[in-house]
This record gives sequence, structure tokens and C-alpha cells, in this order.
Amino acid sequence: MDFKMTIPPKLPPVPNLDDAAQQAALDLQKKLTKPYGSLGRLEILSVQLAGMTGRLDWLPQRPAVIVCAGDHGIAEKGVSAYPRSVTKQMVLNMLNGGAAINVLAQQMGATVTVVDAGVAGILPEHPNLIAGKINYGTTDLATASAMSPGQADQAITLGQRVVDAHIDDGADIILLGELGIGNTTSAAAITAAVTGAPVERVTGTGTGIGLEALERKIALIENALEMHAPINVDTLAKFGGYEIAAMVGVMLGAAVRQVPVVLDGYVAGAAALIAAQIDNNAVKYWIAGHRSAEQGHAIALQTLGLKPVLELSMRLGEGTGAVLALPVIEAAMRTLQGMATFGEAGVSGPLQ
Amino acid sequence: MDFKMTIPPKLPPVPNLDDAAQQAALDLQKKLTKPYGSLGRLEILSVQLAGMTGRLDWLPQRPAVIVCAGDHGIAEKGVSAYPRSVTKQMVLNMLNGGAAINVLAQQMGATVTVVDAGVAGILPEHPNLIAGKINYGTTDLATASAMSPGQADQAITLGQRVVDAHIDDGADIILLGELGIGNTTSAAAITAAVTGAPVERVTGTGTGIGLEALERKIALIENALEMHAPINVDTLAKFGGYEIAAMVGVMLGAAVRQVPVVLDGYVAGAAALIAAQIDNNAVKYWIAGHRSAEQGHAIALQTLGLKPVLELSMRLGEGTGAVLALPVIEAAMRTLQGMATFGEAGVSGPLQ
Repeated sequence: MDFKMTIPPKLPPVPNLDDAAQQAALDLQKKLTKPYGSLGRLEILSVQLAGMTGRLDWLPQRPAVIVCAGDHGIAEKGVSAYPRSVTKQMVLNMLNGGAAINVLAQQMGATVTVVDAGVAGILPEHPNLIAGKINYGTTDLATASAMSPGQADQAITLGQRVVDAHIDDGADIILLGELGIGNTTSAAAITAAVTGAPVERVTGTGTGIGLEALERKIALIENALEMHAPINVDTLAKFGGYEIAAMVGVMLGAAVRQVPVVLDGYVAGAAALIAAQIDNNAVKYWIAGHRSAEQGHAIALQTLGLKPVLELSMRLGEGTGAVLALPVIEAAMRTLQGMATFGEAGVSGPLQ
Repeated sequence: MDFKMTIPPKLPPVPNLDDAAQQAALDLQKKLTKPYGSLGRLEILSVQLAGMTGRLDWLPQRPAVIVCAGDHGIAEKGVSAYPRSVTKQMVLNMLNGGAAINVLAQQMGATVTVVDAGVAGILPEHPNLIAGKINYGTTDLATASAMSPGQADQAITLGQRVVDAHIDDGADIILLGELGIGNTTSAAAITAAVTGAPVERVTGTGTGIGLEALERKIALIENALEMHAPINVDTLAKFGGYEIAAMVGVMLGAAVRQVPVVLDGYVAGAAALIAAQIDNNAVKYWIAGHRSAEQGHAIALQTLGLKPVLELSMRLGEGTGAVLALPVIEAAMRTLQGMATFGEAGVSGPLQ
């Protein structure tokens, strides 16, 4: 995709990583009592996080899960194994603490906030719910633009405001997930549009549809891509959804504040493809927590140049793959900070 | 390898997994508010752990890292990037809390015990050190049998006693690692012997040797395999080391007590190949924590039928790859136990 998205106009540019902090982390890694490089991904993460935060003594102490939720008009066309009403039901389940993300967030000491960006139902007030509803679900992307460009802009701004409030409140790492029956259809359409990959290579079974439904899903996406051509700044609006646009805002807003964002699965990956078009520098502040079992996710991650921390064959969303990566991220910083150096420990270095 | 090892004779057989507990975990997974299978590896781990422990309400509450240490005669032949003295120095570093495993164990709430199975040096008394030294390092496996069969048996018994004492003391999951300059040479020889894989496919750069040293390492192992033919019950004794034999004892001893063992990297994988020959049922109680960057490890794991939880390009040993998998293991049980069912949460199930 060779256009440059310009929404939302109010976001300042994302700062560069702190080169000096990265170099200092790299130098320290070479002195710690282990063969240099033998902690693999942990060493790389420690250098990246030093660059994002500008600190070698940073630790994730106030992790915040943000789950963006929205409904999709296309869900009525049989592209999901579950009825559209499950989006609202699962929001309520999350507010009651019964979803997978609640259990995992509690284990990891993270808060959970649900953002209603476009759920097709009325939700009660709740301290963990942000009532940001822009619409009661998107328009069916197979028939018209899922959102108007203005609505997409509104949802991005919503996400940016939500993450800003979290950071103002002390959150120091964002674990970003979503909820929305039908949203792997949007994710596949966006991934195909942005990467140019064939639709059948970026479309999966989502919540667990059969082969017949998968073929229908692929055909719908192919037709929608044709209908919505050319790919341009309105790609996000055309394919939806509200929760995806809100995630774009979260990703960009956190990067502007130099706060790391851990991305969950395929839908987050599709949002990241859009957010990277708006400010490619933001990618440096994102960590891919988990590679989804949805086949299109690997293509999205490759395009973004992100390597997932975990590969656990999960395909749930909600931020589950992001929160599970948190202990590895913490371990990266703890080993950087807590290990003895060769000099301190009196351990011989490598032979010449 | 088509022989059946019979040492140590005193170990009772490993019990079968609890089928009823496994079935109950599987049934519960189908009722939880997520598409069945969408938690991927977490769901599979929860069923396995229910089978090992006989409980659906099990959680890893007393994790214990056991690091088996020993020296290798072959280390004098330039197969490592570090001098042999580093084994003893790193044991002291671990006792002082400065090694990677100490930092990670502290993060995860695990204890660390170092077992001196055969370090080539005198170690001080320390509450976290078990003085089980059988010898001051092995004989160079390129010139003679690394250990006598009796010494190998002694080391297995040592490992079994150490794990027994841990379990008696309340440990409910064992995170198993090792330390020993030169021990990836032993691991490669054992892996080649047991799996029949070509030596160049199971030999890696260990602590980080150059290409010339790698070629020397491969040639030494090939010659040793020829010298020590045929592969038989003395394979472990022939290729060493003391820490590898002790790990065999830990793996079998824990399985007899139905306590899960999380295996670290390549050297643990080689020990597992031997332990599986002694009692193949024990494999069911092992979880591969991490796939090492050492290429032979993938071959060992495939032979064992174990799929690693993590792949973080690490190659340090010490148990680092095991302890990093602990949060995922805990998450598997917590999601099984803590999530709402479709019925409880009023969430619609899948469409017919």
C-alpha cells in the first residue's frame, strides 16, 4: 500500500528510540555472566525496551490490558461460529471477571479495561467499561463502507484518549486486545488490502467455522476488496471495525508517549498494519506478544517486521496472547538488571 | 536405540496418568466461555497436568529449580568457548544469586538448588548446594568411558534422592537445568547415539565456539561414537556426564512421585532420551519448557514426542528455559479453574 494515511491530524509524531539507552543495554548484556547472546530473545527485548523507555532500570510495574470491543455488520452473513449477540455477552462476562483475559490479567497483576467502541447493544455503566460507542456495530462491509471516514477518525481518537488516560494514571505497558464477533473478516480484508496477499492466505476459521463457511468468508472478502478498490486512506473505514480503529488509536497514542504496547493476535495485527501507515515510527514501540493460529497473522507480522514472543496455537483474542508475553518481557529487564557481571562474580570470560 | 536400560534397579515403575482427571479437564474446557481449542497450548497443558496430578484444582505453588552441575574431561580439547574452571565459578555465582537462573527464579517465586554431581573443584558448604560429588569431572569421552557404569548409577540415584527430598519438602513442580562446561558435547554424543541422527545435525556451537572449534567438536564426537560402539546400556556412562546422569534421576524420580518436571534445553533433552529408555512412561510427566537454539535439541524433542512451550532462541541452560515456561503452565491451570462457563455467564454457544 503506497499511500500515507493522515488521520488523526492531532497526533504528534512518534519520538525515536533512545539510542544511548539502547547502546548502554547492549554494552551491559556483554558483561553479564552468560555467553553473549545466550539469552536470545530476552537480550533483544531488553535492548528494545531500554530504547523505548530510555531506562535500563525500567520494569513493567503497572501493566494495563485494554480490550476494544465492537460489532460487525458482516457477522449476519455467517462468517462466525457464534451469533453477533456474543460480543455484548462477552463484554458482560469480562466485566464480571469470567473471561480468559480476566483470569490471565489477574495472574499477571494487570488491570482490564473494556472499551465499547461499537457494540451492537446497550451496556450498563461499569468502572471497567469505557462507554465510547460510536455506533451499534458497523455496516456490512460486503455492501457498503463499514464506517464513514469521520467515524473511523472518531474511533481512533477514542483509542488515543483511552490510552492517554491510562498512561496519565500510571500505566507503564499496554496489553492490547479486542472482542468482536466477525472481526477476523475485517482483519483479513485489511491484511489483504495492505499486504497484497491473496485472500485465501489471510483468511482463517476465526472462532471455529467449518469449511463451507470459510469458503463463504473468502468469497465475501474478495468481493468486498473489489467493491472497495482502490486501497487508499479510507481502507480502515471501508473494512471496519470500530474496535480496530480504536486499537489504531491506542497503538499510536502509546507510542507518542513512549510507552510499550504488547499486541495480541490477528485483529491487533491488522490494526497495526493501518497504524504503521499513519506513523511507521510507532512500530518500534510495539511488541508482538503471540502469533495467532490464524494464518493471516504471520503475514501481517512479517510485513510489520515484528517477531512474536510466543507461539501457543491460541486464537482467542481479548489480549490473551499479549498478557501471556508479559513475564518474558519482565524477565528480559530483570536479567539485564539483576545478573552479576563477569568482573563482579569472578567468572572467567571466553577463551581467546 | 533398541535396548532397554535397567538402571537404577531400585526405582518403582512410573504410574499412568489419571485418565478420569484428564477427561474431566477436557469436558470442562468445552464448557468455558471461549471457542473450544482457542486457548491452544494452554488447553492441552491443562489436560496433561490434570492427568499428572490427578487434580483439576492443581496450581504450581512450590516450584523448585534443580541445577545439576558437573565437569567434562573433553572440555580440555577446545570444545567450549570457556575454560573448564567456569563450571565451578558459575556454581559460586549461582550460590551468590548472580546467575540468570537466580534472577528468573526469583521473578517466578521458585527456589534454586545446585547439585554438585561432579564439579572439578572443591565447593564450599552452602544451604542451596547439595554436595553429591561423585568425581572431579568425567574422563575425556574421546579417550575412554566418561564414567564407569557404577558411577553413572550413583549419579542417577543422587538425582532421584535430591528430587525425592524436594517433593517431601513440598515442591510440586520441578524446573530442571544444568551447568557444565563441555556438556553440549556429551549431549550431542548421546543424542546421536540414541536417535541415530548424523553428528553434524545434533552438534552446535554451545557457549559460542567458532567454526573451527565446531568442526573439531564434530570430529571428536564421531570418533567417540565409533570407539564406544555398540550403543547399549552403558551409553550414558560412556558419554557422561555426572550432571546428565543426575538429571536422569531427577526426571525419573519426579515421575514416580507424579510430580511434573519442566525440562530446560539441549542437555536436559539428552538426559531425557536416556531416562525415557529406562521408563518410557516417565515422558508423560515431562514438559519441554523451551526449545534451545542448539540444533540437536529439536531432534531430541521430536524423538521424545515433546513440543516445547517456548522458543526464545536461548542457549544458556541453568534451567532458564524451564522457569520461563512456568507462567504459561500456571496460566493453563488458572484458565481451566477461573473462567466462567457458557451457562454461568449467559453467553450463547456456537451456532449449529
